[in-house]
Amino acid sequence: MPTLDALVFDAYGTLYDVHSVTAKAEGFFPGKGGALSQLWRTKQLEYTWLRSLMGTYENFNVVTEAALRYACASLRLEASATQISALLAQYVLLDAFPEVKTALARLKSRHKLAILSNGAPDTLGALVRNSGLAPLLDATISVDSLRVFKPAMRVYQLAVDQLGVPTNCVGFVSSNCWDAIAAKTFGFTVFWINRLDAPVDLHGAAPDHVIRTLDDIEARL
Amino acid sequence: MPTLDALVFDAYGTLYDVHSVTAKAEGFFPGKGGALSQLWRTKQLEYTWLRSLMGTYENFNVVTEAALRYACASLRLEASATQISALLAQYVLLDAFPEVKTALARLKSRHKLAILSNGAPDTLGALVRNSGLAPLLDATISVDSLRVFKPAMRVYQLAVDQLGVPTNCVGFVSSNCWDAIAAKTFGFTVFWINRLDAPVDLHGAAPDHVIRTLDDIEARL
Repeated sequence: MPTLDALVFDAYGTLYDVHSVTAKAEGFFPGKGGALSQLWRTKQLEYTWLRSLMGTYENFNVVTEAALRYACASLRLEASATQISALLAQYVLLDAFPEVKTALARLKSRHKLAILSNGAPDTLGALVRNSGLAPLLDATISVDSLRVFKPAMRVYQLAVDQLGVPTNCVGFVSSNCWDAIAAKTFGFTVFWINRLDAPVDLHGAAPDHVIRTLDDIEARL
Repeated sequence: MPTLDALVFDAYGTLYDVHSVTAKAEGFFPGKGGALSQLWRTKQLEYTWLRSLMGTYENFNVVTEAALRYACASLRLEASATQISALLAQYVLLDAFPEVKTALARLKSRHKLAILSNGAPDTLGALVRNSGLAPLLDATISVDSLRVFKPAMRVYQLAVDQLGVPTNCVGFVSSNCWDAIAAKTFGFTVFWINRLDAPVDLHGAAPDHVIRTLDDIEARL
């Protein structure tokens, strides 16, 4: 394996638990918080893919709100404007997974560290600051400048360009298997964080490494 | 509304019930046939979107097999090679929805009729022949020549080019709301067949008409 001068992390689902919205959702809709969180996330991703293919990009805030409204309608939940706003506001307050901060602090001594995310720059920046990860990162890169979402290949080129590190010296870390497969196709060395013991996706080259948490990265370097 | 000289139909889910694989799946995996069919379809669509965005097109047969293998793995079903082959073979034997044949026969007197589908030409052609719909159709158009799946906008242009009918004189019919929204964005007059009383998707312009079955088209013309 080449020396990995940079480690680039996906944000939502990888560093941050998108399902940390569940408690707030459960408070609003008792018994439905988990289902709402799951469907919201599923639709959010689906809308990023569809808008990218249609060539009708709108930023991740727009997509996230539309996905939430769809999920509420699908589950027959009458969400008030206040509840919608409160749920969307969680996106700058998502919990980092427990190991993230200490793992990044250790990795920082040997690697450039960055986020490459679908997130809109304002929301993503606020999340990184609020979670205390900002001092650990050399860059927080959003797809927004390209007006297309992952897994368009040119998104991954953004990390190469902004970090000044050749493709074959970038390690890419994602818990979204489809994101890991795309990054592998692009040419990165890929670590798929398989937190939930899911099967690997089968629409492209398999990730180089399958690990359980960020703490498992160093042993593979 | 302009005169709709052509009506273009999506195939899978619209004319043909993709879940007609359920009985065969249930025979192989008692109690799991419905779940397998649902997850298979979900992953099949997901893989078409991801491969299209990644620029790594493989035809729909390849995607369909990968999605089936993923779905089996996810549900912890040990499918034999014979079972995989038997399930895939259902794709040339899918049931048309009950009203399809008579509805197309009526519409044929006033409109050019065509299918525009993600399906691979061989499989799609066999399905259309086996189901007895071939004599009712002026064209069966596959995305395969473009090496990209729906909802890439250039897919919808295929129908305009092959039927020789202007965009604003094409009516497009799909039970896949995302497909209907894309066709609307492209410029067709769109009929979304909402067989399951689902909410409309929210990532683009809403369909012109929301109907329950193909029998409802004529009343809207």
